[in-house]
Amino acid sequence: MDMHTLTRELQLGNDSKIVMLVADGLGGLPMIPGGKTELETAKTPNLSGLAKLGVQGASIPVKPGIAPGSGPGHLGLFGYDPLQYKIGRGALEATGIGFALKDGDVAIRCNFCTLDAQGNISDRRAGRISSEESAPLAISLRQIKIPGIEIFVEPVKEHRFVVVFRGEGLGGNVADTDPQKTGVPPLDPRANEPGSVKTVQISKEFLVQAKKILAGHPKANFHTMRGFANKPALPSFQEVYGLRAAAIAVYPMYKGLARLVGMDIVGSAQTLSEQIDTLEKAWAEYDFFFIHFKYTDSTGEDGNFAEKVQRIEELDAILPRIAKLNPTVTIVTGDHSTPSYLKGHSWHPVPTLLVSDCCRPDPHMTFNETTCITGGLGHFEAQFLMTLAMANAGRLGKYGA
Amino acid sequence: MDMHTLTRELQLGNDSKIVMLVADGLGGLPMIPGGKTELETAKTPNLSGLAKLGVQGASIPVKPGIAPGSGPGHLGLFGYDPLQYKIGRGALEATGIGFALKDGDVAIRCNFCTLDAQGNISDRRAGRISSEESAPLAISLRQIKIPGIEIFVEPVKEHRFVVVFRGEGLGGNVADTDPQKTGVPPLDPRANEPGSVKTVQISKEFLVQAKKILAGHPKANFHTMRGFANKPALPSFQEVYGLRAAAIAVYPMYKGLARLVGMDIVGSAQTLSEQIDTLEKAWAEYDFFFIHFKYTDSTGEDGNFAEKVQRIEELDAILPRIAKLNPTVTIVTGDHSTPSYLKGHSWHPVPTLLVSDCCRPDPHMTFNETTCITGGLGHFEAQFLMTLAMANAGRLGKYGA
Repeated sequence: MDMHTLTRELQLGNDSKIVMLVADGLGGLPMIPGGKTELETAKTPNLSGLAKLGVQGASIPVKPGIAPGSGPGHLGLFGYDPLQYKIGRGALEATGIGFALKDGDVAIRCNFCTLDAQGNISDRRAGRISSEESAPLAISLRQIKIPGIEIFVEPVKEHRFVVVFRGEGLGGNVADTDPQKTGVPPLDPRANEPGSVKTVQISKEFLVQAKKILAGHPKANFHTMRGFANKPALPSFQEVYGLRAAAIAVYPMYKGLARLVGMDIVGSAQTLSEQIDTLEKAWAEYDFFFIHFKYTDSTGEDGNFAEKVQRIEELDAILPRIAKLNPTVTIVTGDHSTPSYLKGHSWHPVPTLLVSDCCRPDPHMTFNETTCITGGLGHFEAQFLMTLAMANAGRLGKYGA
Repeated sequence: MDMHTLTRELQLGNDSKIVMLVADGLGGLPMIPGGKTELETAKTPNLSGLAKLGVQGASIPVKPGIAPGSGPGHLGLFGYDPLQYKIGRGALEATGIGFALKDGDVAIRCNFCTLDAQGNISDRRAGRISSEESAPLAISLRQIKIPGIEIFVEPVKEHRFVVVFRGEGLGGNVADTDPQKTGVPPLDPRANEPGSVKTVQISKEFLVQAKKILAGHPKANFHTMRGFANKPALPSFQEVYGLRAAAIAVYPMYKGLARLVGMDIVGSAQTLSEQIDTLEKAWAEYDFFFIHFKYTDSTGEDGNFAEKVQRIEELDAILPRIAKLNPTVTIVTGDHSTPSYLKGHSWHPVPTLLVSDCCRPDPHMTFNETTCITGGLGHFEAQFLMTLAMANAGRLGKYGA
C-alpha cells in the first residue's frame, strides 16, 4: 500500500496551518577536513530557537547516494515517491518556465539548429544564438495552425524553446528528432507506442510549417524536437492530503513543480521578505504553505561558501515573522544538499527541522548537518516528511482499529 | 524502480578508486553485561584515524533481525537486494568450492548414502565417511558419460560432493531425491516445472551409472541429489556500476561470490599481507577492490573472543598500506556480525566506515558498535552501501533535472 492510499483514507480536516520552508540545497560540506559546513558556520539564532522547541533529522532525498534534480527533490518533499513519479524532460522544461500544463498536454523541448543546403544539420544549436535573437523567432512560430490542436510556443534561453500541443489523444512517447550529430538531416518524429501516433502526425505538420517560417534565417533555419512528455499524472495535494495548499516561490521552476501537484501559486514576490508578506496575506485562505528559498542552492552551485552562509543568515532572520503567525507545524528543510565544496547537487542527507506542540522535541539546541544525524526524526526518506507534517497537525486519523 | 536501474542510468566514468575491505562477521557483542565488544576491546589506532576523517553508520545486512549467510551477506554489500536475488543451495555449494559456474549450469549437492539389500536407505550420510575415503569415490564418478552434456563432479567434505551439468535447456527446479528418512528408497528426481524435465532425465541416467560404479562399496553404495540450482541470474558489476572490479580473497567461497557478480579474481594471496601485495599490483587495472578478511568471522564462530580481538588488530595494522595507495573511497565493513558470544552469524547491524574527501565526516573519533549507531550514515540497509560508494567516488550523475 502506498502512502497516498493511506493518507487518502486517514486524512482529517481541522483549522491547523502547516508551513514548509524549503531552503533549496540547504545541506553542505566543510571546505577543508575538520572544518564546518555552511549551516554550521552561519549565525542562526532563530533556527537554534526552533531547534530547542522542535525535533530534527536527516532527510534522504531519494535513496542513499542518489543526488536528485529539483524535480525529484521537490516531489519527495511533497510526499510523492520520486522513483515512482517521474516528470518527463519536456514537461519539466515547460514547468521550469512557469507554463501551466493541463492533463493530456504534450510538452517538447526544441532547439533551433542550422541546416546546410543539402538539408543536413551543420550546427545543432544554431551557433548558440542569443536569447535576444531567438525569442522573437520562437514567437514567430506561434502563427503555426493545425486544426483541432491548440499550440503554445514559449522562448526559453539562447537556442532553446518549448512547444506544447493541447488536444485529444496526444501521447508523449515520441523519439527525439535530434540525431545528436552534425552532417546528417534531423530525424523524423517516430512514435514509440501506438498511443503517440497522433502526436507524431502533428509534430510533422508543425515541422513543415516551421521550416517555411524559419527558411530565410542565416543560423536558425530549422529546429529539432526532444524530450516529448505528457504532463505527469500526479494525484493532487488536495486529494491525497485534503490540504488547500499555497506555493510562495520566486522562480518559475518551483511554482511549476508546485502547480503539478495542484498547489495554488500565490502572490508575485521577488524577495524573501515579499514572500513572507504573501504568506501573511494568504494565511486565512490555505492550510499548507510551501515557501521556496532559492539562494542557498544557487550560491552552493557557484561554490561560494561565504555567500551561502550569508543567505542562510538571511533565511534565519525572517523566521520570527513566520513564528508570529503561530503555525501549527513549522518545517525547515531542503530538497537536497548543494555543498559549495562540490558546486552541485549532492546525495548527502538534508538537515530537517519540525516544530509543533506535539513533535516530541529532541535534546538538540542547534540545527545543522551534525546535530540532525542524532535527531529525533532519525534518518528518513524525504517522501515521509508530509505524513509527519500531517500527523503533527492533527490531520491524520488512526490506521486500523 | 530498483537501484540497479538507477545506477545503470546514472553511472559516470572517472579515474577514482574504491576499496571495500570486508572483515567477515565484524560486528560483535560483549561477553558479559556492561562489557565491551571485540571491536571495542581491540587496539585500533588506524581505524580511529579513519573514523576521524570519515563517516560511519550501522549497516543492516538484510532487514532488522535477519542474520544472513555469506551469500546474502555479500550480495547486500555488493548492492544486490538479498531478498530479490537468491543463490540456490547447489549453486552456493559449487561457488563455495571455487567452481566457476557458467550461465545455464545446474549445480547439485550430493550426499553419499548406504542402501540395504532391499534398496532402502539405511544411512543418509554413508556412515559419515571420511573425506579421504569419499574424495576418490566422487572422482570415480567422473567416468559417467551422458551424450550432449558436460558433467563435473567435485568432492567437498566427508559424505558431500557437487555435481554440475552443463548443456542446453537445463532448468534447475527439481525436487530433492533425499527422502529425509531411512528405511525407504531414495526418491526419483522430479521436475517442479516443465523447463526442468531434461535435467530430470539426465539426473536419472547419472544415478543409474553411479549405482553401477558405487555398487561394491560397503558404505557409500549410492548417493542422493539435493538443492538443484541454476547459476543465479545476477547482472554484472561492470554493467550495473560501470566498475572494473577485482576480488582479493583467500577462501574459495568469497572468490566464488565475487565471480557470480562478475568480478575478476585477482592473485592467489594466502595472507592479509599478501592480499595487500595483490592490491598494490592490481591498482592500475581496476576501479573497485573487494578485499575479504575471513578470520573475524571464523574466530567469532569459534566463540574465541580474544582471538577475534587479535584478528581485528591484525586488520587494523594493515590499513596504512591501503591508505598509502590513496583510494578515492575507503570502506571498512562486514557482511554481518559474528559475536563470539553467539558463536555464529547474527542480525546485529555491522559497524561501517566510509572515507572520502566529500563524505561529510561525523564527529566520531573511534569506530565500533557504539559509535556507529550515531554516525552520519545512520542505520541503513547494506544494499545501499554501493550507491554511497559510487556517489563518494563521483561516479553517479544527478537523478532527474
